[in-house]
Amino acid sequence: MKKKGLLIVLSGPSGVGKGTVRKAIFSQPDTKFEYSISMTTRKPREGEIDGVDYFFKEREEFEELIRQGKLLEYAEYVGNYYGTPVDYVKETLEAGKDVFLEIEVQGARQVREKFPDGLFIFLAPPSLSELELRITQRGTETAERIRDRMEKARKEIEMMNLYDYVVENDTIENACEKIKAIVVAEHCRTTRVAKLYKKILEVE
Amino acid sequence: MKKKGLLIVLSGPSGVGKGTVRKAIFSQPDTKFEYSISMTTRKPREGEIDGVDYFFKEREEFEELIRQGKLLEYAEYVGNYYGTPVDYVKETLEAGKDVFLEIEVQGARQVREKFPDGLFIFLAPPSLSELELRITQRGTETAERIRDRMEKARKEIEMMNLYDYVVENDTIENACEKIKAIVVAEHCRTTRVAKLYKKILEVE
Repeated sequence: MKKKGLLIVLSGPSGVGKGTVRKAIFSQPDTKFEYSISMTTRKPREGEIDGVDYFFKEREEFEELIRQGKLLEYAEYVGNYYGTPVDYVKETLEAGKDVFLEIEVQGARQVREKFPDGLFIFLAPPSLSELELRITQRGTETAERIRDRMEKARKEIEMMNLYDYVVENDTIENACEKIKAIVVAEHCRTTRVAKLYKKILEVE
Repeated sequence: MKKKGLLIVLSGPSGVGKGTVRKAIFSQPDTKFEYSISMTTRKPREGEIDGVDYFFKEREEFEELIRQGKLLEYAEYVGNYYGTPVDYVKETLEAGKDVFLEIEVQGARQVREKFPDGLFIFLAPPSLSELELRITQRGTETAERIRDRMEKARKEIEMMNLYDYVVENDTIENACEKIKAIVVAEHCRTTRVAKLYKKILEVE
């Protein structure tokens, strides 16, 4: 059953908890997919480690990598660049392993164009009020920036139709379980496995 | 989050182990969907109970129910009728519960026409030789009937493309886990949940 890995893209509005859910998934020992670490020009938040949470880069370095075509996707978001180094993703998929990206919605749109048969999951807040509450509680943003984010979130939720699946982040446990179930299911989709079974029929 | 239940259809070649997998799924306490018991005119095998494994009917009774439109689907298979009583399925879906059918491939085709947005899962043997072995080991069939079934199985495997998912029945545990993951995933499909989230945006 030799096949290429599956590209799994988790995205959703800023503040919805993508990073928390991703960390929870990768803290579980039965998780079989590989995490592709993003690159960003934003400053590390407290506790974030370079090469673990993100590759933290200066703006000039990031722009040079864009010019060299070394990014699968990138987006400028609230004044900072976020992007995915392309080589790691391609090599891991070729080796037959699933790769997991946690990226902003602008970037997800770019990946969809390059990997139309990827698995695109939208992490959604239980409601927009809940989303606003979470952003406010983070306590690191000005009121103006929160309004900007809310407006952005409305647009992002409208983008939901670009995704294959929507997972509501009601609890981290539920969201993790659903995302892992989606990956299991996706490997069973007829379009992905039909070729293999036709081969069995021919050999017989 | 008021919505109709999901119609889950498990089908596949005779002898692949549909019944065994279905029983294993419903023996697990966390299974949340409802089993729709099939009706058949074949004689009960040892240990099978009327109203639990099947509703066992005489041929004349079955044909009367067909005439009355009381069957969601039915098929004649190796000289016997198999079918699904329609009322139970419709009422359970309306109540918002998922309904699980385990049926023959002829029947699955009929259900697909009536419920195009149902969830159709094809249970596949690891290989056709493995399928033959399993049928032989059952020890209740003549050689001629086994040949009939093999020919039928080849045709059925070609029908795989009518299904949304293919689950290989390598072990019962794996098959059950994958089927349950597929149901979880299907509830998250964007086409099924997009309407709900658009409502949140409007209310806000």
